[in-house]
Amino acid sequence: MPSISQKARHMPSSPIRKLVPYAEAAKKKGVHVHHLNIGQPDIKTPKNALIAVQQASIDVLSYSRTEGSDAFREKIAKYYQRLNLTVSASDIVVTTGGSEALSFALGALLDPDDELIIPEPFYANYSGFAEGHNVKIVPVTCTFETQFALPSVEEFERRITKRTKAILICNPSNPTGYVYRKDELEQLAEIALKHDLFLISDEVYREFVYDETKHFSMLSFEALNEHVVVIDSVSKRYSMCGARIGFAVTKNSALRGAILKFAQARLSPPTYAQIASEAALDTDESYFAEVLKEYNARRNFLVEALRQIPGVETAIPKGAFYCMVKLPVKSAEDFAQWLLEHFSLNNETVMVAPAAGFYSTKGLGEDEVRIAYVLEIDALKRAVHILEKGLEAYLA
Amino acid sequence: MPSISQKARHMPSSPIRKLVPYAEAAKKKGVHVHHLNIGQPDIKTPKNALIAVQQASIDVLSYSRTEGSDAFREKIAKYYQRLNLTVSASDIVVTTGGSEALSFALGALLDPDDELIIPEPFYANYSGFAEGHNVKIVPVTCTFETQFALPSVEEFERRITKRTKAILICNPSNPTGYVYRKDELEQLAEIALKHDLFLISDEVYREFVYDETKHFSMLSFEALNEHVVVIDSVSKRYSMCGARIGFAVTKNSALRGAILKFAQARLSPPTYAQIASEAALDTDESYFAEVLKEYNARRNFLVEALRQIPGVETAIPKGAFYCMVKLPVKSAEDFAQWLLEHFSLNNETVMVAPAAGFYSTKGLGEDEVRIAYVLEIDALKRAVHILEKGLEAYLA
Repeated sequence: MPSISQKARHMPSSPIRKLVPYAEAAKKKGVHVHHLNIGQPDIKTPKNALIAVQQASIDVLSYSRTEGSDAFREKIAKYYQRLNLTVSASDIVVTTGGSEALSFALGALLDPDDELIIPEPFYANYSGFAEGHNVKIVPVTCTFETQFALPSVEEFERRITKRTKAILICNPSNPTGYVYRKDELEQLAEIALKHDLFLISDEVYREFVYDETKHFSMLSFEALNEHVVVIDSVSKRYSMCGARIGFAVTKNSALRGAILKFAQARLSPPTYAQIASEAALDTDESYFAEVLKEYNARRNFLVEALRQIPGVETAIPKGAFYCMVKLPVKSAEDFAQWLLEHFSLNNETVMVAPAAGFYSTKGLGEDEVRIAYVLEIDALKRAVHILEKGLEAYLA
Repeated sequence: MPSISQKARHMPSSPIRKLVPYAEAAKKKGVHVHHLNIGQPDIKTPKNALIAVQQASIDVLSYSRTEGSDAFREKIAKYYQRLNLTVSASDIVVTTGGSEALSFALGALLDPDDELIIPEPFYANYSGFAEGHNVKIVPVTCTFETQFALPSVEEFERRITKRTKAILICNPSNPTGYVYRKDELEQLAEIALKHDLFLISDEVYREFVYDETKHFSMLSFEALNEHVVVIDSVSKRYSMCGARIGFAVTKNSALRGAILKFAQARLSPPTYAQIASEAALDTDESYFAEVLKEYNARRNFLVEALRQIPGVETAIPKGAFYCMVKLPVKSAEDFAQWLLEHFSLNNETVMVAPAAGFYSTKGLGEDEVRIAYVLEIDALKRAVHILEKGLEAYLA
């Protein structure tokens, strides 16, 4: 029997993959599982996006243009222009989700054994995409103690080798909720220019920022035009995760051409999803204002409620809809499994994502979990209560 | 300025990419271009598939299941069962087009510098996917003279090295229209078993077979269960190229697990497209019977008409909807460009795909083009007439 590739063997499974069978077993027993483990919001998709698909007049569901239609990319450019970012339609390649944009960017920039520096903890699927391209991830550790702020320039420079091609950041960050300050981004810009590196900036949570926090896009650094590619998506802003429409944005024409080659091989992004996404871009501003208000309320509630639990520490997320939580346990993974396997309160339990899977360095984050505040406050309230009681019972 | 990856540099552009600006220029001048260069059928998508999307009740367009829903995969399994192929839902991973299924299969099976044997000419994007995974394509040349029949076992064995991991076939073939006989597939099976290789069988044109030709799926060889992965798609059968739904089918659980890891990294296939595709599987058999009748008529017309043109030779396609055509010119690419740039008849011209891009061996296929019979007979008739007159003028 022939054997699968080394890289498939090395590719990590999802951090929650081991827990899924336990969640399914709990559900089979009739236990309601509150999913705090995933980034699937419960927020309604804008009606106009759904209606656009219903009303689309289609006889032949044909291929669309590889890089997305002119009209769609013009609209995306206008969206960036409203944010005071100078982007034109020709800077954009539409992809099948932000996932594909990232995978294409990695393939376009890095050869096997090239190195990609990423502040950890980071979105777990970055490992999958990197392994898929045989790219080596070099982590720079951010700490719970600093609320996951960007490490110093020295920490980055210590890790730069001849094989380093790019730095990848997620801003606002999944899983930490950290939003980089302008001076932190300026540090990164300096490093990229000095060492001639690409900067891949995953900004799919761009508009999920709270309080006085301001988001700075890597697209706002003109000196970096040849160095930056931004990964974006409609999934989060319009609660359209299932559309699978994202985009890569770069002013570097060689890079754009390279991304386009990957895109040509897979022909085109999904047609229905583009219809929905193009319409979504016309959604009234009030839709997202409401969404943001809701997430802000959830965040405030969650952080406050978690802090009431003895022994629990919380990083205060400034953006996205995730929160890193330190628990008074040795293995957060064991606790997460135990919650699903052995604990329930009024026939309800909670699923959280063990955070070790978001670190590349072995041994880090063992006592941390990531909680996504993608549920309504009432559900969050019950979920946190279950977490508290579960923790008491687990530690007893 | 940092530079893009070697692999992006090596990745070929589409065989028709160079011609696209000439086609656009022709259109700008008001010339109608008959597109015989692409595999985008004009056949209507089944109404029930389109209606299913219109009537879907969606509030939150959420992620779907990574491998496709149970219900959808059950239906796909039933489809194979109707073809007397023993496939169960758990053998299937739903992907974003057959393209993604193929890319995942290559990543799951081959490491950088591993070798993949492919009979040439082959679907040009195979090169893109192989380069994307740093996999080396080793071609085995099929000839126009044998109508692109499978080369001998010896030809394959001469190319097998320690790095050979898999053989990839397209059956029915894009671009040749060749359909492998059972004894040819048995030869391949023997090679795969003897040398412990995987067999990747791209069968997206499975049901497009004409006359007395019968299609044999690689899934019908039980002895090969651990060696075979079949690439499939709804694009062609239901004229739903823009859906971007395909699947990988394999009984090899290690391989399926590996494909699933790639799939998890990109989260899920597009939701709308799955709704359409699941409904499409319920389309009345009469739909496809009509489609097949239409393609058969187009094929018969095309082959007969081309044969009337002095100096033109045609391989008779037994399946798919492509036809390889040998022209009495030195460079088919130059001729194709000339047709767009300098020739029109009653303000119409023709775009064909130069076939050199379908060969991996440099210098082959220079005088060949691939013609897709995806237009109605009236349009085909005009297109062939333009081709004939164009050829006369070009050679004059």
